[in-house]
Amino acid sequence: MEETEATAIGTADNAPRRPLMLITNDDGIFAKGIRELVKALRPYGEIVVVAPDKPQSGRGHAVTLDAPLWYMVSKFDDADRAYKCTGTPSDCVKIALYRIMERKPDLIISGINHGSNSSVNILYSGTMGAAMEGAIHGIPSIGFSLLSFNSDADFAAAALYAARITAKTIENLGSLPFTCLNVNIPCLPESEIKGVKVVRQGKGEWIEDFVRHFHPSNKRPYYWLTGGFHDLEPESTDTDTWMLDNGYITVQPVTVDCTDYAALKSMGEGWFD
Amino acid sequence: MEETEATAIGTADNAPRRPLMLITNDDGIFAKGIRELVKALRPYGEIVVVAPDKPQSGRGHAVTLDAPLWYMVSKFDDADRAYKCTGTPSDCVKIALYRIMERKPDLIISGINHGSNSSVNILYSGTMGAAMEGAIHGIPSIGFSLLSFNSDADFAAAALYAARITAKTIENLGSLPFTCLNVNIPCLPESEIKGVKVVRQGKGEWIEDFVRHFHPSNKRPYYWLTGGFHDLEPESTDTDTWMLDNGYITVQPVTVDCTDYAALKSMGEGWFD
Repeated sequence: MEETEATAIGTADNAPRRPLMLITNDDGIFAKGIRELVKALRPYGEIVVVAPDKPQSGRGHAVTLDAPLWYMVSKFDDADRAYKCTGTPSDCVKIALYRIMERKPDLIISGINHGSNSSVNILYSGTMGAAMEGAIHGIPSIGFSLLSFNSDADFAAAALYAARITAKTIENLGSLPFTCLNVNIPCLPESEIKGVKVVRQGKGEWIEDFVRHFHPSNKRPYYWLTGGFHDLEPESTDTDTWMLDNGYITVQPVTVDCTDYAALKSMGEGWFD
Repeated sequence: MEETEATAIGTADNAPRRPLMLITNDDGIFAKGIRELVKALRPYGEIVVVAPDKPQSGRGHAVTLDAPLWYMVSKFDDADRAYKCTGTPSDCVKIALYRIMERKPDLIISGINHGSNSSVNILYSGTMGAAMEGAIHGIPSIGFSLLSFNSDADFAAAALYAARITAKTIENLGSLPFTCLNVNIPCLPESEIKGVKVVRQGKGEWIEDFVRHFHPSNKRPYYWLTGGFHDLEPESTDTDTWMLDNGYITVQPVTVDCTDYAALKSMGEGWFD
């Protein structure tokens, strides 16, 4: 056992490289969620943070084509290096991979998001846009989200589980069954979390309620996008939505292939001939 | 036959409702692609346009949470009504469904986009963000894209096929095997288009080349996101990428469920216990 441990720790000559992690988010580099994430992941490898310089919630997989991107060094406790960038979460991953980092990271971690990315929220999520950008490049990527929009939420249990799930992923690098995970964590004390479930995405939609206000000077109406989430399959017990409602952390393996294979099969080649 | 036709055309009392189509895009309401699309779809139903007031390329499925949305009537030949909106393509669909339209549209059509949305481009695409927003709400939705970034591209063949594919979809409303289609059209004269193929999404990634410029006054560097598409499975002959390269129009049925079911199965429930 001692020999194995010595090999694992390594020597000057055959030192195994510590995993290199790129960390980003969509709430911006100053959010509590990313600070707590980096603190929790500190023991597991080398950490480079490249995160938006301001909140980018709801940006999905957006990239910036019509404006230049700027980045600069930012102070960040617990990180080896950190940069704030003017772009979207997906831009941050791209500029990290192609401009900032000397080598490809072993892992990309996004979050911890302030708010749920379960069900259809994954599509609007900048947190998951960044993780999916990693997956496109074949890099194991994880997005973590806590089910609380409170900017000062208690991340204790979320950070603990984020570290566990990351550690397990690092253990299995090279033989992973996934490239991307969408992990959602109920806002509960650790003692009340029932466990971790690998799940599918539940069907849902937002019923929007565009709140109308009027400009103080020209009196023109404008609208704020607000709404309520509507679970389209509340009876299903195998969805992320149900598991979260029932105290479980959910892990959704995510693909960047949007093809509906059932429809592909039933349409066949001749559908539009 | 005459009787059937009379019924189809309808009378004052039992007039079948003409299909109501919501049209949007991501190049903005003044782009040639959406103008040509509306002109081509004019014979097939009632048309309401709600489109961005400026280009929104690369916005993916982004929604606007941190700014108010404005919309106003816009002049648009061939449309029954048209509005330009300050938001993203996805915002346009939401505000159309929840604020502008009196009833749910039968169909949402997005495009015709100036540029390809094949392979992984679907994730960055505002055109497809809008179509997927429709699919989330259970409305049959189609995004059309022409493989040319030329703002004055020849849309003749693209508009013709967009009309055909829309007509076929309208014929089958109520029994569709899909809710969302991603249709890509090579930039070729009609005579050179080999046919229409229902396909899966090819694997690909963008190799980014962040071009560095310097601010004229403060000399700080900034970066433009540019790059080249890299086909990750050039040998596969069943992908959208291959079919487009070989002169076919591609139809990708699209799902808004991002779950990787193969990974879900192989991970099982206990992976993170």
